[in-house]
Amino acid sequence: MVQSDLIAVDWGTSALRGARLDAAGGVLEERSAPLGILNVPNGDFAGVFAAQFSDWMRPGARCLISGMAGSRQGWAEAPYVACPAGPDELARHLRWIEPDRIALVPGLSDAQGDVPDVMRGEEVQIFGAMRLAGLADGLFVLPGTHSKWAVVRSGRVTGFRTFMTGEVYSLFSKHSILARTLDAEAPFDEAAFRCGVARAGNGEGLLHNAFGVRALGLFDRLSPPESASYLSGLLIGEELSRQKLPAEVVVIGASALVERYALALGERGATVRTFGAEATWVGLRALQP
Amino acid sequence: MVQSDLIAVDWGTSALRGARLDAAGGVLEERSAPLGILNVPNGDFAGVFAAQFSDWMRPGARCLISGMAGSRQGWAEAPYVACPAGPDELARHLRWIEPDRIALVPGLSDAQGDVPDVMRGEEVQIFGAMRLAGLADGLFVLPGTHSKWAVVRSGRVTGFRTFMTGEVYSLFSKHSILARTLDAEAPFDEAAFRCGVARAGNGEGLLHNAFGVRALGLFDRLSPPESASYLSGLLIGEELSRQKLPAEVVVIGASALVERYALALGERGATVRTFGAEATWVGLRALQP
Repeated sequence: MVQSDLIAVDWGTSALRGARLDAAGGVLEERSAPLGILNVPNGDFAGVFAAQFSDWMRPGARCLISGMAGSRQGWAEAPYVACPAGPDELARHLRWIEPDRIALVPGLSDAQGDVPDVMRGEEVQIFGAMRLAGLADGLFVLPGTHSKWAVVRSGRVTGFRTFMTGEVYSLFSKHSILARTLDAEAPFDEAAFRCGVARAGNGEGLLHNAFGVRALGLFDRLSPPESASYLSGLLIGEELSRQKLPAEVVVIGASALVERYALALGERGATVRTFGAEATWVGLRALQP
Repeated sequence: MVQSDLIAVDWGTSALRGARLDAAGGVLEERSAPLGILNVPNGDFAGVFAAQFSDWMRPGARCLISGMAGSRQGWAEAPYVACPAGPDELARHLRWIEPDRIALVPGLSDAQGDVPDVMRGEEVQIFGAMRLAGLADGLFVLPGTHSKWAVVRSGRVTGFRTFMTGEVYSLFSKHSILARTLDAEAPFDEAAFRCGVARAGNGEGLLHNAFGVRALGLFDRLSPPESASYLSGLLIGEELSRQKLPAEVVVIGASALVERYALALGERGATVRTFGAEATWVGLRALQP
């Protein structure tokens, strides 16, 4: 039997992206819309899905959807699968919306410590990057609003941790006292960023170091455009300071953010391999039997 | 010569408080108004001052004003005095608005590290608490939006650090993803608070531990009322985890917040002495010749 087309969908909090893949996993066509799960009118997920993808859903086509669409606030809940887990475990726990036609991919949970951790969508990107990199073991980093650091052993995620780095950057730069002396629209300043990364390694912690942005501004030692990149460096540096780094780290995400993590990881002596959106499509293809 | 009355004023960001003191430092009368420096109409500081205190400013009366009124955004700038500094150094750098009648008290700066730190208003509370406690040496903590930890030696502040603990609590509980599963109006839950304090000692850092509030909520292991106290414990615990604590710590502030710090410091084995608003009046009296 010839493997059918796969419609791969990444349905997150703020965006809806889809790709039509051929049997070999090649991308035939891509689409995206600002229809994240928080922007679905009247909770009509089926209607939004049909409007975006019905022309792709020919007889025999199958659609796999990763991301927040499978959360309690999404189309339907696909409960978290516990670590350790790989593509096989995810494939066994798909939540079918229409049998053999449309399924939601579950997220992962890590309940090994006192406090659980969760991811939803990143696990598919990790499995995709594993295939693209030809790796069955490694440390995978997914920077973002809630950055994920996942350890992979023999093709399965054995554990991971979340860091609220991107969200805290947004909170500080928009809503805190630092916003008064920080130009969040300024272009990236690599020197200021590196200063922030270095500062984060002083062991004083974020609550103290963040106030330094204010104090440096008061004494005219950090300009508003520099402050934005310095704060970004402080936060990413703080995140990195919690990690035991192997020689090589895989970073998956949008290029601007990946570049910053590569700079900070380089300061710590790690080599970086990077992947972008293609990891999602390859990861969803990996869930196909 | 008989020492004249002192009008002691604490003019902060959000509130204006004043006390009329007798020659011995006793409080004859107190007043307060929600007229912090951000709420002064048209920047008319002289007008607001007169409306609040002109009846107290009899001939011979003297007024000392501490807090943000002496900042660049205040009535006039009283530049920071560098550490180490005690009451004598502050008294020598008063910024007189009217000669021998109304003066702004400068704040302190600590420029001993790579990044400077600043306080404005807390230094007066520290000098007051020193007098009240009969201490010339010690570690003084002033919890708040921006908590201060100050080291005092031989009656002078030799160095200090700021932690954005209160502001970050506000950011997380109002503007972050944690706000969705956190009841910020809930009464204090001591058990949840202690769990948060303990968690902060795990070495994983705030960016990771804060996400745990979300994950514990998702798995119904932390209710919205508990989440507020747990987050408070996480943040205060994070602040404390950066300190080398002596056997005794002096904590100065409002009673509800001081109680939380006393609990957290107790977990770390420190004895706590506490002072409230009276420290400000005693500290301003200490600046009188």
